[in-house]
Amino acid sequence: MSAVAESVTASVTRSMADALRMLAIDAVEAAKSGHPGMPLGMAEIAVALWDRHLKHNPRNPAWPDRDRFILSNGHGSMLLYGLLHLTGYDLPIDELKRFRQMHSRTPGHPEVGVTPGVETTTGPLGQGLANGVGMALAEALLAREFNRPGHRIVDHRTYVFAGDGCLMEGISHEAASLAGTLKLDKLTVLYDDNGISIDGHVQQWFADDTPARFAAYGWHVVREVDGHDVDAVDRALQAAHTAGRPTLICCKTVIGQGSPSKAGTHDVHGAPLGADEIAQTRRALGWPHPPFEIPAEIRGRWDASARGHAAEADWSERFNAYRKHYPLDAAEFERRMQGKLPAHWHDAARAMVRDTDCAGESIATRKASQQAIAALARNLPELLGGSADLTGSNLTDWKGAVDVRTDHSGLQGGNYVHYGVREFGMSAVMNGIALHRGYLPFGGTFLTFSDYSRNALRMAALMKTRAIFVFTHDSIGLGEDGPTHQAVEHAASLRLIPGLDVWRPCDTVETAQAWACAVERDGPTCLLLSRQNLPFATRTAEQIAAIRSGGYVLRDWPAESAQVPGARVVRVVLIATGSEVALALAAIAPLAAAGIAARVVSMPSTTAFDRQAPAWRDAVLPPGVPRVAIEAGVSAFWRQYVGLDGGVVGIDSFGESAPAAALFEHFKLTTQALVDEARRVTHVAHVVR
Amino acid sequence: MSAVAESVTASVTRSMADALRMLAIDAVEAAKSGHPGMPLGMAEIAVALWDRHLKHNPRNPAWPDRDRFILSNGHGSMLLYGLLHLTGYDLPIDELKRFRQMHSRTPGHPEVGVTPGVETTTGPLGQGLANGVGMALAEALLAREFNRPGHRIVDHRTYVFAGDGCLMEGISHEAASLAGTLKLDKLTVLYDDNGISIDGHVQQWFADDTPARFAAYGWHVVREVDGHDVDAVDRALQAAHTAGRPTLICCKTVIGQGSPSKAGTHDVHGAPLGADEIAQTRRALGWPHPPFEIPAEIRGRWDASARGHAAEADWSERFNAYRKHYPLDAAEFERRMQGKLPAHWHDAARAMVRDTDCAGESIATRKASQQAIAALARNLPELLGGSADLTGSNLTDWKGAVDVRTDHSGLQGGNYVHYGVREFGMSAVMNGIALHRGYLPFGGTFLTFSDYSRNALRMAALMKTRAIFVFTHDSIGLGEDGPTHQAVEHAASLRLIPGLDVWRPCDTVETAQAWACAVERDGPTCLLLSRQNLPFATRTAEQIAAIRSGGYVLRDWPAESAQVPGARVVRVVLIATGSEVALALAAIAPLAAAGIAARVVSMPSTTAFDRQAPAWRDAVLPPGVPRVAIEAGVSAFWRQYVGLDGGVVGIDSFGESAPAAALFEHFKLTTQALVDEARRVTHVAHVVR
Repeated sequence: MSAVAESVTASVTRSMADALRMLAIDAVEAAKSGHPGMPLGMAEIAVALWDRHLKHNPRNPAWPDRDRFILSNGHGSMLLYGLLHLTGYDLPIDELKRFRQMHSRTPGHPEVGVTPGVETTTGPLGQGLANGVGMALAEALLAREFNRPGHRIVDHRTYVFAGDGCLMEGISHEAASLAGTLKLDKLTVLYDDNGISIDGHVQQWFADDTPARFAAYGWHVVREVDGHDVDAVDRALQAAHTAGRPTLICCKTVIGQGSPSKAGTHDVHGAPLGADEIAQTRRALGWPHPPFEIPAEIRGRWDASARGHAAEADWSERFNAYRKHYPLDAAEFERRMQGKLPAHWHDAARAMVRDTDCAGESIATRKASQQAIAALARNLPELLGGSADLTGSNLTDWKGAVDVRTDHSGLQGGNYVHYGVREFGMSAVMNGIALHRGYLPFGGTFLTFSDYSRNALRMAALMKTRAIFVFTHDSIGLGEDGPTHQAVEHAASLRLIPGLDVWRPCDTVETAQAWACAVERDGPTCLLLSRQNLPFATRTAEQIAAIRSGGYVLRDWPAESAQVPGARVVRVVLIATGSEVALALAAIAPLAAAGIAARVVSMPSTTAFDRQAPAWRDAVLPPGVPRVAIEAGVSAFWRQYVGLDGGVVGIDSFGESAPAAALFEHFKLTTQALVDEARRVTHVAHVVR
Repeated sequence: MSAVAESVTASVTRSMADALRMLAIDAVEAAKSGHPGMPLGMAEIAVALWDRHLKHNPRNPAWPDRDRFILSNGHGSMLLYGLLHLTGYDLPIDELKRFRQMHSRTPGHPEVGVTPGVETTTGPLGQGLANGVGMALAEALLAREFNRPGHRIVDHRTYVFAGDGCLMEGISHEAASLAGTLKLDKLTVLYDDNGISIDGHVQQWFADDTPARFAAYGWHVVREVDGHDVDAVDRALQAAHTAGRPTLICCKTVIGQGSPSKAGTHDVHGAPLGADEIAQTRRALGWPHPPFEIPAEIRGRWDASARGHAAEADWSERFNAYRKHYPLDAAEFERRMQGKLPAHWHDAARAMVRDTDCAGESIATRKASQQAIAALARNLPELLGGSADLTGSNLTDWKGAVDVRTDHSGLQGGNYVHYGVREFGMSAVMNGIALHRGYLPFGGTFLTFSDYSRNALRMAALMKTRAIFVFTHDSIGLGEDGPTHQAVEHAASLRLIPGLDVWRPCDTVETAQAWACAVERDGPTCLLLSRQNLPFATRTAEQIAAIRSGGYVLRDWPAESAQVPGARVVRVVLIATGSEVALALAAIAPLAAAGIAARVVSMPSTTAFDRQAPAWRDAVLPPGVPRVAIEAGVSAFWRQYVGLDGGVVGIDSFGESAPAAALFEHFKLTTQALVDEARRVTHVAHVVR
């Protein structure tokens, strides 16, 4: 290239970066809130990636073989909105003007489903990186499953922007360690190494040699890249292609680059620059244009619509050739990427439930879950199982599960991921897999360790990812491991997360139905399963179907209790979940002997039950009839079902280390306690407090 | 040493290790559950540390200058129980025979407060390591605060046993990175590198170069130590003393070492060996003694009582010399290590609350919290503040706060820790600081990120640590940052953790009282604070005192509403917390206009309120009077206070990105909504559902 051409190129590149800068600071100023520091600091990195590497089609954000881009440092959302706007996504400038306003497509942090081109919701630091590991893993496994000699229909990369905050978070360790172990060579992380976090210069709280740390994970690391030199970043991105393992590109940047007075300080991180400083920045950058105006030349240079269209057209042609040779695979690929269930799914699910009912086994629900997985896996090749190093306890594996492993040539295909002791990482990786599409991930750990992954469960609910979290050892029923391992408040507290479905089935049939509902749901589900054996309950076909409503009558009052007018009939509703349903069933006879007719409502999913029509809920829990709930968990949760006058048998302290049977006695989670409580409430039921 | 003497020493050493082995496998066998693999594998490491290095007095587990020992891989609890028993703690052999049984002193995982000599409760992996960082930090800061030239009264070390599981967990990254940055040179971690976790050989899910990783954190790393060679471990422990930074000793071990058929496999991790294999192990080790019988010679060799007594006596003598020179410091040191409050604490707390009331400011409760901290710090030198990189947002710093920093000579003293973006690590480190004693730690982050640290909060509650978790930005009131940052279910779900106190104050005075209660509490407290300004509420002296009960009448029904017999008086109780108290107060007038007399109950702490006597609770919430609760959080939680017939104004979805005022309108968290709900429930109150 001639010196003149080079200089023109450099000038265009600078303008492209500055366009991102100005959109960011003007939008933050208009919103009177937001984070300008990161977009100013990462503008050149964004140019290098988005203009020279990223394979995407702004006109079709759902193109399956697009590269995935994740802004793990999601507070820099305006950088992404600027990129989406300028490259041609359906994100008009008016949306940028409405940054952070009600129902705009430009919320404070990027949200998948709200803004076209946003691949995952970020903001809670570190999780975007883990989502990226999930996406790269999904890509790698799909490629091994669907590509054929001469046909590479799955062949895209995953790029992550991450800051100091992401890399301080523990989840960055879990995700990066797993990515290194699995040799996810199409994952590239661009680290915004600006030396600043909210409290100031990071050296006093974050003195890691981050390149050495990632090298210790087996990553390819490119050190000391000038993050304001587009060509340098470009070269590092090139090098990532042939590394054979995940790549970390360490970009030295200046936070707030371009802001004459605030660059390099934490003041620029999370507050508008202010009118004066913005004017100074305009002058310093030589950017004479008013807010939200981008010269046509720069706009044209950024526009990726034509390139993107051509790229997808090329892929479509190749996919059609693939379809010709492998029509079944092509159809299956399309089904999987659309997240549709197989044609015979409903028959298969019904058959599974029916077979489970016929078998009538009294086994632990974790074991019932394993049988359900085995049955489902025959019809659901998209099932991608795993456990956070508790496979033999969670019973998340099945005959037909193939471990995802690596050898000298890299990752081998499979459908079972040993996530290691990484509960949070596992859950966020599962979110990434689900967002990528192509697989339906499930993963196991003990219920008490749902705490470790809690924010990823919340993010799953917020993003509506199709992911199934298998939490076994769901109560003091796990026995001797003691209070650190015994869930007490977890069932209740998971049910409080908006949009998260929670099931605590009582036997094999409820477990099978819970699995079917989880598979069918367009959002995340938690399955809370027992370590100990639970007795099988007989049901009619109607009752089996009613399990899906989350709460249903498992044993009704005897017919005569409603049919003798004038006779004194004292009635009570017993509500139970999981291992306590058997205790409730056992209470029927002693209560009858005491003159109390008891209906037993099994409530495997309060979250599903709460969605039912009032008529169903009132039919199951008739207003006016006193209620007693029993669950091996905190009692306060059940007040919303039994009211102030009802009764709850629960446990409001931590557990103890002892055999399970001794614990149920010690904590008075017994049929006798339920009988006593039912007697109490039936006597006081008509006294209004 | 002569060859004979050497051989005798080696033989004694072997017997000491085998005594630990046999106690572990026999106890696990007796319990029919437990984890023999780790005690078998770490027996020699335990001998090296406990017999040759650990400074402790089995007869006084509370000796302030003892070394701290933490079994972060807590499932190997029998190793610790064996050590405590053999070295002379009050843990008789009968307790070992009752391993994992109800109310034994030998629960499944080590529990502080249950077993003398157990420093922290472990089991949830990785947290013990972080507790250790907290203890080492407390030691370092106390030494800098209290030691004087020629007087080293604080001079002990912290030792941690950790396994693969601990090091896979993300919190190990957060804790180790912070320890390296702070150059905690008296922290030594012994890594049980046995290559096995529950799912099998770790290489397929944990391929880190762990020594390189810790070197990247600035740790001194001793690689490739033979973990079955006591002398080799001993030498590595020696080297740690002069490293000038934290030390990781990587011990290559065989899990289940000594078990002829199961050593080196994951079968030995978490299940009894079985009678046959135990018999084989006895033969292989040449251990002819029956279960739970330890020959007197080996017992004598292990007994550390005399040595321990001498060590403490030496320290006591030195402490008395210190007391002679620095009587005030000595008294202060003793007060702090006993966890007692200063003599004039109650006066100071009352003065703080009174001053706050006089000032009558309408400010954000996070700002009120900062003022409370500043006032408290004058009288509480043990306050050790900090934030997970949100100091300027959490407002956790104060005039007089001195950053804990390092320079070339190591850690400098201070009372404010920049924890970095490490919420989970911060919380577990705070637990370690509290367990060490000498400081009262508090630390801040956004409420929504309490999710990240949730299991450490649970552990705080289980261990009853005196730690204060400051969670600001407590609702949609934070505005534009959007749903990822807006707590919705968090207040409710924190309140479900047994033993955790949660406060959500409505103004400056409630914030001051909440702080006072938190300081006085022998357990953990969460303070949920607003980003936005909240109006000051006037109160009588009685009301100010009543704040401590967690729920009290802030504005009562007008006197006449109770005094006109026969007149139709419709009454309602409005319950509110935090930012919604002002909405409730504003509802009084419109409700009065509609003929409804409203009492406003401020309920800053449901957890404190629930502990009050029924008479108080009934006086505040009179039975029979309809109730409506309002809180910017999930509504289901409030059913336990308002019943099925009451009303709740809450938010049962995720938030949105928009200015705060717009959000409160959008989600109908308004006085009008409260008025409507109060009208609804007063009309239906006498219809029993």
